[in-house]
Amino acid sequence: MENGQMKRQIGRYVKLAGMGRALAGGRLNFGGETRYRLRAGETLLDLAAEAAGKALEEAGMGMEDMDCIVCAMATPLQAIPCNAALVHERMAKGMNIPAMDINTTCTSFISALDVMSCMIAAGRYEKVLILSGDTASAALNPQQKESYELFSDGAAACVLVKAGPGEGSGILYARQCTWSEGAHDTEIRGGGGLLPAFSMTEKNQEEYYFDMKGIQILRLCARKLPGFVEECLREAGVAREEIQAVIPHQASKALDVIMPRLGFPKGTYINRVPAYGNMVSASVPFALCETIQEGRIRRGDLVLLMGTAAGLTVNFMLMRY
Amino acid sequence: MENGQMKRQIGRYVKLAGMGRALAGGRLNFGGETRYRLRAGETLLDLAAEAAGKALEEAGMGMEDMDCIVCAMATPLQAIPCNAALVHERMAKGMNIPAMDINTTCTSFISALDVMSCMIAAGRYEKVLILSGDTASAALNPQQKESYELFSDGAAACVLVKAGPGEGSGILYARQCTWSEGAHDTEIRGGGGLLPAFSMTEKNQEEYYFDMKGIQILRLCARKLPGFVEECLREAGVAREEIQAVIPHQASKALDVIMPRLGFPKGTYINRVPAYGNMVSASVPFALCETIQEGRIRRGDLVLLMGTAAGLTVNFMLMRY
Repeated sequence: MENGQMKRQIGRYVKLAGMGRALAGGRLNFGGETRYRLRAGETLLDLAAEAAGKALEEAGMGMEDMDCIVCAMATPLQAIPCNAALVHERMAKGMNIPAMDINTTCTSFISALDVMSCMIAAGRYEKVLILSGDTASAALNPQQKESYELFSDGAAACVLVKAGPGEGSGILYARQCTWSEGAHDTEIRGGGGLLPAFSMTEKNQEEYYFDMKGIQILRLCARKLPGFVEECLREAGVAREEIQAVIPHQASKALDVIMPRLGFPKGTYINRVPAYGNMVSASVPFALCETIQEGRIRRGDLVLLMGTAAGLTVNFMLMRY
Repeated sequence: MENGQMKRQIGRYVKLAGMGRALAGGRLNFGGETRYRLRAGETLLDLAAEAAGKALEEAGMGMEDMDCIVCAMATPLQAIPCNAALVHERMAKGMNIPAMDINTTCTSFISALDVMSCMIAAGRYEKVLILSGDTASAALNPQQKESYELFSDGAAACVLVKAGPGEGSGILYARQCTWSEGAHDTEIRGGGGLLPAFSMTEKNQEEYYFDMKGIQILRLCARKLPGFVEECLREAGVAREEIQAVIPHQASKALDVIMPRLGFPKGTYINRVPAYGNMVSASVPFALCETIQEGRIRRGDLVLLMGTAAGLTVNFMLMRY
């Protein structure tokens, strides 16, 4: 649809005007690797507000400048209202700014960039605050070592603004697919309308834990991801060598198995799994923010954001920072 | 931002190509009014699939024609993955169609129309399936009569497609605000990251029920809604008399108190609360679908979709059907 006209060119003129990140205050150590978990009294709202505050500061803007607050998170803070309303209460009380959630689980941040850049391109908004982050620790099963030792609680935020055609920043290409053969490979079956909190018994409480079938996910990815990535690169008209930074979702240690199979050898993509583990929706923006802060991404650089999410949903986005 | 150029004209050329609706199979009677609740073995996915099937049929399209599946629902079916991935599994398994959730609680459908019409205007998608619906019955507190006797389980869906400038269909004006002074006036405090399912005890289980502070909501609405509506009409450059159909969120019996105060006397807006109660995110699209089916809305008619949602979020959208 968009591909013809967007080949190698910026299709939607937007700019990441500022980014921020925050880690939970509690620390656990698993085999020499640190994982971050919320301390008693600390909530994801604290981390989200910290990350958003830094993003606004870097953008040189205040909350009152924002046209919309978007929470791009995988899990709800409360069953009702949406997460963005609770962030609004914390950071924008008394302002009329609309608040909205956009959710594709782990890749919610990439989806939100895709969606909100269209709203900016359509003239609906000009400045948007996007926040990601999850309380992974709320549903981890200590008996499932693979996932229990993998996740951290963290948050990240960005200020996305309309850019001029001459600024060199924007989105060249975005694609998203859902392969629901994998809908139950990563899930928390309980806690929603299908199996309400009230239905929890001693017998079924495993259903309320995070459950990841690592091998099945790997198999589905091995079968479908290489073709997807080739197709995206071809449609975008971009070669791997032109990309200055590849930020994949920090899903697990399997990153070093999967990425080379997709034509990105070790060293050509950001892998912060040893440092932070998987931070669910915060993984991509957190790693992007850190890489920018380290000076490894500069204005105008071609950046690839990609990842797999529960669903199974895959995202692929090429942007000039 | 968009207002100048959009005054009284279509700003985003989209069309509701088909709509469908579905009610839960169980029936309860409260003081002569029927409420619909899921029967044993029935889930919201059944209702969503029924509504979406009808919408696709009316549009003369198949699922394979869709570019994106959007769940515009207030509550999660599971904590992970997102609702749209579960709908995808039911209706689009084996297809690559992306699946995504957009959530502003009760007005999620209006927000999703707003967002997806921008994605269509930006050339990102051309045909989108939007589904709304919630399992209100999963969290109703039998002790809180006001809400227990108000809600029904239902679903509604639409196929939103790109339209040509000559077709006369599209969105003229859309505005959304969040007034988070009311963030805790309508909520389910438990079940998410702030108060996980695992934290439920006999003492705190009220926190996992739906909790609505009707009087506080009414007060906030009385104070802020009239000005909001006036501002929207002025910005849109549209007079009330030009609007052929007003579809408000079917929040409660207070509709007949609030709407006249907003300048819409009884009889000028659709009130189906006596028939169905409040169906959360399904209320607006269900009433819209029914009104179209009754022949009260015809192609080219100016339709106002509006409502308040937990958050407190308000939406106001003018579209030509």
